[in-house]
Amino acid sequence: MEVKKLGEFRLIDLIGRKVNTRDKRVVLNIGDDAALLRCPPAKLIVFTTDTMMEKVHFDLRYSSFEDVGWKSMAANLSDIAAMGGVPLAGLVSLGLPGKIKVDQVLKLYSGMKNLSSKFKCPIVGGDIFFSPKGLVITISLLGEVEKNLFKTRGGARIGDLIYVTGNLGEAEAGLRILRTDKKKKSSIVRKHLRPYPRVSESRLLIKNLNITSMIDISDGLSSDLYHLCEESSKGALIYAEKIPVSQRITRVCKSLNLSPLNLALSSGEEYELLFTLNRNEEKKLRTITQGKFKVTLIGQIKNKKEGVEILGLDGKSRSLKKTGYTHF
Amino acid sequence: MEVKKLGEFRLIDLIGRKVNTRDKRVVLNIGDDAALLRCPPAKLIVFTTDTMMEKVHFDLRYSSFEDVGWKSMAANLSDIAAMGGVPLAGLVSLGLPGKIKVDQVLKLYSGMKNLSSKFKCPIVGGDIFFSPKGLVITISLLGEVEKNLFKTRGGARIGDLIYVTGNLGEAEAGLRILRTDKKKKSSIVRKHLRPYPRVSESRLLIKNLNITSMIDISDGLSSDLYHLCEESSKGALIYAEKIPVSQRITRVCKSLNLSPLNLALSSGEEYELLFTLNRNEEKKLRTITQGKFKVTLIGQIKNKKEGVEILGLDGKSRSLKKTGYTHF
Repeated sequence: MEVKKLGEFRLIDLIGRKVNTRDKRVVLNIGDDAALLRCPPAKLIVFTTDTMMEKVHFDLRYSSFEDVGWKSMAANLSDIAAMGGVPLAGLVSLGLPGKIKVDQVLKLYSGMKNLSSKFKCPIVGGDIFFSPKGLVITISLLGEVEKNLFKTRGGARIGDLIYVTGNLGEAEAGLRILRTDKKKKSSIVRKHLRPYPRVSESRLLIKNLNITSMIDISDGLSSDLYHLCEESSKGALIYAEKIPVSQRITRVCKSLNLSPLNLALSSGEEYELLFTLNRNEEKKLRTITQGKFKVTLIGQIKNKKEGVEILGLDGKSRSLKKTGYTHF
Repeated sequence: MEVKKLGEFRLIDLIGRKVNTRDKRVVLNIGDDAALLRCPPAKLIVFTTDTMMEKVHFDLRYSSFEDVGWKSMAANLSDIAAMGGVPLAGLVSLGLPGKIKVDQVLKLYSGMKNLSSKFKCPIVGGDIFFSPKGLVITISLLGEVEKNLFKTRGGARIGDLIYVTGNLGEAEAGLRILRTDKKKKSSIVRKHLRPYPRVSESRLLIKNLNITSMIDISDGLSSDLYHLCEESSKGALIYAEKIPVSQRITRVCKSLNLSPLNLALSSGEEYELLFTLNRNEEKKLRTITQGKFKVTLIGQIKNKKEGVEILGLDGKSRSLKKTGYTHF
């Protein structure tokens, strides 16, 4: 059935039933002018928002409605993770084209909820409107973080070590594969369609280590490293040979005629964490993360005057190019 | 200068400078992965979001960029007011068409800030993206409210009196005037372009009176009265002759060949408050609001079985038609 036929208010009822929660922190859920939540005592509120628009951020020819919902949620959860926060609750502002079907809208919410429920982060309200030119999804999330634990982009100090979680380049490679083969199913394609935000990894790191700054990789490693250095008023040197690129990406790059290194430096929407650590804690980090998740030392923080450089595979350092997705 | 030429990150810098705040509740402002705020101690968090899309919610042929920013903010502030809350901070997720100019974007933020600063509600972050088909603005707001003071749509009791703030019909009349005369300037046009959310009125009411339910009029009086009755599981009777329509609206309706009553029942985006009051407090309400703002008694809450009715100017009651704007 088309949404048009069901009507706005009955659709909101259906969505309300779908995302219903028994979370005790939620005092008032979907269906009023706003949601009401209990304040996390003695903590700070983390507050973030992110929009995904059809044909700009995703393409329904190779993303399912569940995929789009999942990824919109992932982008926001990743921002909470980058601050060291724990997700609390979210709102969804949803622009729907006239011909969209009710079950497509509910699939979108399934995708959002399947991910957010893993982090006990209920959807507690939002807004629905007519969007003639395609789907638009804005999620706003609240999280909480201890006053002494939150991380910003701005705390890196000279000599700190630069780390990244996971492998890089897969989100962008996944997109390129889908552009040539819409139906392709592989773990690389999955990394593009269903990225997994590093919430628990972030919590483990900040609780146990002297992490000095953190950012999530949403614009691409090179751009996000620049963001971190700018906010910290520092420079950096990273090593090309250390950047974590999986063997499967190396293989895919060969077939797509791409440089794995350039892909890893520019791939946005990775939702991995880029962070800096006090250099005395290198061993401690290895102990803490061992057997849990991959983290790779890729460089170190330098004086601002030295700029942001990369030591190439040829043994020469050069200024790092800001590559990656920009909207304008 | 076009945004395209300046680039996304330099635009964010400019916006950050424009909306900068010294509010002590804001721990971390624009420029990181998320904003950080202090929790209001012993209060509940009010959380709301609302999107305005070009050609759907506004038209740049007769709304200036300041108007659009103002109104987007007003819609969200009004939702906080409807819960009885005090605004705390907001995020803006902004979709920009390729040809938009930097000064137009800054004017949009001026409009938002001019209104939000009246309520000490800083803009603390957001998201910017390319939106090829026109401007899209999603605002998410946080507010705070005392645990024993918040109001929902769901608390009306049989015999409660139904009130509305201000005059009705002006927002819709203003829009119709603008459609025939884009340059028209009048107080009615202003009500469409720059509605003023009833935050302080709401606070005065809930602190001093036994308000049993509240909603803001964003869909239209008739639709929003239905929302309130449904959530309260009650019926209602309102009196056509009591619905507050100003003389200027009566005059405008004559020239536009419209019924003032129908306009007042269906006009959305009024951002007035519709609320119910324990009937023993009628006199107290008059004392408290006298000389401060207009409130009008328009009817009373009935048993659910009696439905939602209007006593017409002809002395006959009939079922109230759900009119007003719906998106689908």
